[in-house]
Amino acid sequence: MKLYTYFRSSAAYRVRIALNLKGIDAELVPVHLLKDGGEQFGPAYDALNPQHLVPLLEHDGMALGQSLAIIEYLDETHPQQPLLPPDARGRARVRALSQAIACDIHPIDNLRVLKYLSDKLDVSLDQKGAWYRHWVALGLEALERQVSRDRETGSFCHGDTPTMADCCLVPQLYNARRFDCDLAPYPTLTAIASRCEALPAFDAASPDKQPDAR
Amino acid sequence: MKLYTYFRSSAAYRVRIALNLKGIDAELVPVHLLKDGGEQFGPAYDALNPQHLVPLLEHDGMALGQSLAIIEYLDETHPQQPLLPPDARGRARVRALSQAIACDIHPIDNLRVLKYLSDKLDVSLDQKGAWYRHWVALGLEALERQVSRDRETGSFCHGDTPTMADCCLVPQLYNARRFDCDLAPYPTLTAIASRCEALPAFDAASPDKQPDAR
Repeated sequence: MKLYTYFRSSAAYRVRIALNLKGIDAELVPVHLLKDGGEQFGPAYDALNPQHLVPLLEHDGMALGQSLAIIEYLDETHPQQPLLPPDARGRARVRALSQAIACDIHPIDNLRVLKYLSDKLDVSLDQKGAWYRHWVALGLEALERQVSRDRETGSFCHGDTPTMADCCLVPQLYNARRFDCDLAPYPTLTAIASRCEALPAFDAASPDKQPDAR
Repeated sequence: MKLYTYFRSSAAYRVRIALNLKGIDAELVPVHLLKDGGEQFGPAYDALNPQHLVPLLEHDGMALGQSLAIIEYLDETHPQQPLLPPDARGRARVRALSQAIACDIHPIDNLRVLKYLSDKLDVSLDQKGAWYRHWVALGLEALERQVSRDRETGSFCHGDTPTMADCCLVPQLYNARRFDCDLAPYPTLTAIASRCEALPAFDAASPDKQPDAR
């Protein structure tokens, strides 16, 4: 099993956490998104993933993109340490929390979008920072309200073991800190993230622990 | 079962298709995203969904956001006419195709993002159109390459019955047409969408057939 990854990619970080939580030994293949105009556009990676995004999982002749699809695939094929709850309502909740990050925060603040803002729309650095923080704040505010009020929340986003939602939360908060977002309004989320980050599986997946970090 | 919907919301449109394909009779509750500054920000809807987005499913005391989480929940609780394949690889592929639309095209072109571009960044109407078409083209080009080369593609995105991926494809192409995107480069995708649109379940879910269309 091979995971194509980039140390700072929030989506790849999610899958690295999932692999570690499940104890799956995958080969990590770095794809440098900034070097030489972006290795993701080179012919080798283009043939594997026409989307030119990381992560990508290669397994058993299949090339699978999309971090949440990869995590669910790992969960279905490697049932140890389940990342989705056993009940339909629980799974629905974990998927919705994950998608609130993976659909409604992250893609709008992704590298290629920020690049379009500066390259094509002449947006200033300050405006780009404000854009980034706007979508993070909007998304995390809603998530904080939901997670702090739901009875299903435990030490982690759902219950007392990490799920796919925690695999999404930790990278999003990591990136938010990099862009100087104020996280004080989200005490429930940051407390959950601290609990996660204390676990070796999360720690070993963090960007600064990756071989391609520089 | 209640679905909070807006006739033009691409994400709500996905769930309306899924409900129709499964023959589930849900009450559709319209939330007008533009009227009076947006009904989604009113206190009633805010209490249900702090994300202020549609769709939202109310079922059995649960308020569930996120269209893909809702579709998988419907699929797990109403197994007739499955919208995900029976095998882990097939499910992974359908999820990845769905997320390529629901994460990487739609959110960047969503109403609130377009509004930010004009309100906060003084982006012109022409530039906003170009933004919209850029992300649609980038996403559909990758999807066309993948769907046209994969052996798992059939009359629909995956095999010969509609799946969650088709529930995502049709609304995305509908919206692309509204914004004058050139769909000629995606013959496989448009052929699949035509086959879908010929089915009553897809037709009845289309924006112009909704009671709140005006």
